[in-house]
Amino acid sequence: MTRIYDRVALIGLGLIASSMYWAIKRGGLVGEVTGYARTEATREKAREIGLCDRVCDSAAEAAEGADLVVLCVPVGAMGAVAEEIAPVLKPGATVSDVGSVKRSVIEAVAPHLPEGVHFVPAHPLAGTEHSGPESGFAELFDNRWCIIVPSDEDTDAEAVATLRALWEGMGANVDEMDADHHDLVLAVTSHTPHLIAYTMVGVADDLRRVTDSEVIKYSAAGFRDFTRIAASDPTMWRDVFLTNKDATLEILGRFTEELFALQRAIRTGDGDHLFEYFTHTRAIRRGIIEAGQDTDAPDFGRGAPRK
Amino acid sequence: MTRIYDRVALIGLGLIASSMYWAIKRGGLVGEVTGYARTEATREKAREIGLCDRVCDSAAEAAEGADLVVLCVPVGAMGAVAEEIAPVLKPGATVSDVGSVKRSVIEAVAPHLPEGVHFVPAHPLAGTEHSGPESGFAELFDNRWCIIVPSDEDTDAEAVATLRALWEGMGANVDEMDADHHDLVLAVTSHTPHLIAYTMVGVADDLRRVTDSEVIKYSAAGFRDFTRIAASDPTMWRDVFLTNKDATLEILGRFTEELFALQRAIRTGDGDHLFEYFTHTRAIRRGIIEAGQDTDAPDFGRGAPRK
Ligand SMILES: NC(=O)c1ccc[n+]([C@@H]2O[C@H](COP(=O)([O-])OP(=O)(O)OC[C@H]3O[C@@H](n4cnc5c(N)ncnc54)[C@H](OP(=O)(O)O)[C@@H]3O)[C@@H](O)[C@H]2O)c1
Ligand SMILES: NC(=O)c1ccc[n+]([C@@H]2O[C@H](COP(=O)([O-])OP(=O)(O)OC[C@H]3O[C@@H](n4cnc5c(N)ncnc54)[C@H](OP(=O)(O)O)[C@@H]3O)[C@@H](O)[C@H]2O)c1
Repeated sequence: MTRIYDRVALIGLGLIASSMYWAIKRGGLVGEVTGYARTEATREKAREIGLCDRVCDSAAEAAEGADLVVLCVPVGAMGAVAEEIAPVLKPGATVSDVGSVKRSVIEAVAPHLPEGVHFVPAHPLAGTEHSGPESGFAELFDNRWCIIVPSDEDTDAEAVATLRALWEGMGANVDEMDADHHDLVLAVTSHTPHLIAYTMVGVADDLRRVTDSEVIKYSAAGFRDFTRIAASDPTMWRDVFLTNKDATLEILGRFTEELFALQRAIRTGDGDHLFEYFTHTRAIRRGIIEAGQDTDAPDFGRGAPRK
Repeated sequence: MTRIYDRVALIGLGLIASSMYWAIKRGGLVGEVTGYARTEATREKAREIGLCDRVCDSAAEAAEGADLVVLCVPVGAMGAVAEEIAPVLKPGATVSDVGSVKRSVIEAVAPHLPEGVHFVPAHPLAGTEHSGPESGFAELFDNRWCIIVPSDEDTDAEAVATLRALWEGMGANVDEMDADHHDLVLAVTSHTPHLIAYTMVGVADDLRRVTDSEVIKYSAAGFRDFTRIAASDPTMWRDVFLTNKDATLEILGRFTEELFALQRAIRTGDGDHLFEYFTHTRAIRRGIIEAGQDTDAPDFGRGAPRK
């Protein structure tokens, strides 16, 4: 296999970082991978399961001397971590991240990084509702997209190309996009759908006439994957909505507008409106299948085997 | 295998009816199964693929002499079909249906049925987004719930027991529930989630800045199963919302109320509110897993193999 970096540091050892580690090992892509997590418990667990070649007791220790440092912590924690590791970064090193929101990460991280360090943000579009050091697996990124979002126009082309090679080596397809566009696309395809799923699960739970056990028992009929989404890590999603506020609120505004129109159609018994709307959305689904973006294995967009 | 009925008629030959036929054959549960669909094209297709032992050219012809007639047409068409078959129903026969809404089907069908015919509505909680005579498969109901909703208090106990045996023979677990409660539970677990998914897909499509191809390409990140739901049959879902209006509007009202609270939390940056909400919904998901109602195969609640 091709070695792409000599030394990579993973800061944060949750779902994404642990999947990266196993994918890096599978591909033999890196000489040594160091890791750091905030709590002693996570670091212990990582050592126990052999996650990372070396688990360090501080972010700075893990980042020191690395050719690539990947910030794999919640979006709201990126700035503080960047500040902590900045002094030890080696000249010419690349700093990247895997955060689900890009504009706010760039604003939080970039000011801390010294001259001569390349900042190349990225976002792998792959995940599960599980989290923590034991939730990762080497196949998570296989055939999924990873979006690289160069932090500004003069981002070093070689730094981008090398990071791209790493993600491709981990199985992903790589695209580039600017930060604001990324945040809008993700607000539509991921963030707002997640908020909606959280809301629907909350409603079901509040409705005492439909007992919890019934909602659970009969959840097969369309609701169950809403609960799966709504089981995702609360910290991660809190940070996503706080930091991708504008795009999420914009999409939510449109969503409620459309929902009110459908609600009115139901109330007034306007079957034609409902029928036309549902026919139209059906065509969109056809588009997805024709584009080869879906298979017969429905999985709420995860597509990767799980443990 | 045990023969449960001598003659069963399936009126409507779509996803549910064709799955019933293959499940009945698999179990050797019925002597002869007749079938009828509205269009000549569907009847031809049924004959071509061997769907039903005999495909008839009218609903009355199919229903005549049957011990069980199952109405497998959209909810809004049940009344007219019941009226058409009523004159030929054999005394002591059972009429059932598979409609996704129960109160309105009872109101539409019951008045047409003659004395001496038992009406035992039912609803299998199983489906896919596909429809038509070729979409069915014998395993659709395996380990899924079928809710039997006796139409009134003096529904014949033996008629209920025999229908229950048929559904169990087709692989389902059977529960009984009254019609209004069924409609509320389904509004929560199925109807409202479907409406929400339809809406979200419509929003994504309207948003011209996010090009269609991007929504499709990156739909992996949470949105894709929304498009799958939104590909379901427009007629079926129009009828569901028109006929389960009160329960759907009630749940939608609660949904928008909760969504507005979360939207406000995002706007004001109230991370604690978001975090608490997401932590709470996560617990609900845990309940589902502990209740053994989900597996590691995420599938938006379908759970059955597809063709
Ligand atoms: N999960 C997904 O579906 C997904 C998909 C794409 C991108 N992402 C992004 O990937 C990043 C990590 O997500 P994940 O799913 O891997 O999360 P995770 O499994 O919850 O792991 C998060 C890691 O970050 C550490 N951490 C948390 N708060 C921290 C803080 N304030 N300072 C330092 N370290 C902290 C945690 O350490 P301890 O264990 O010691 O607490 C843990 O090791 C997030 O930015 C998320 O937006 C997630
Ligand atoms: N799909 C699901 O997920 C699901 C799950 C549980 C229950 N259900 C319920 O099952 C019933 C059937 O659904 P399905 O998915 O099997 O539908 P489908 O695949 O679309 O098939 C519907 C069948 O009904 C016939 N039909 C349509 N309109 C009719 C009319 N006005 N008069 C007479 N026949 C008519 C159609 O005939 P042509 O082909 O000739 O037009 C077709 O054979 C519905 O009440 C639905 O609520 C569906």
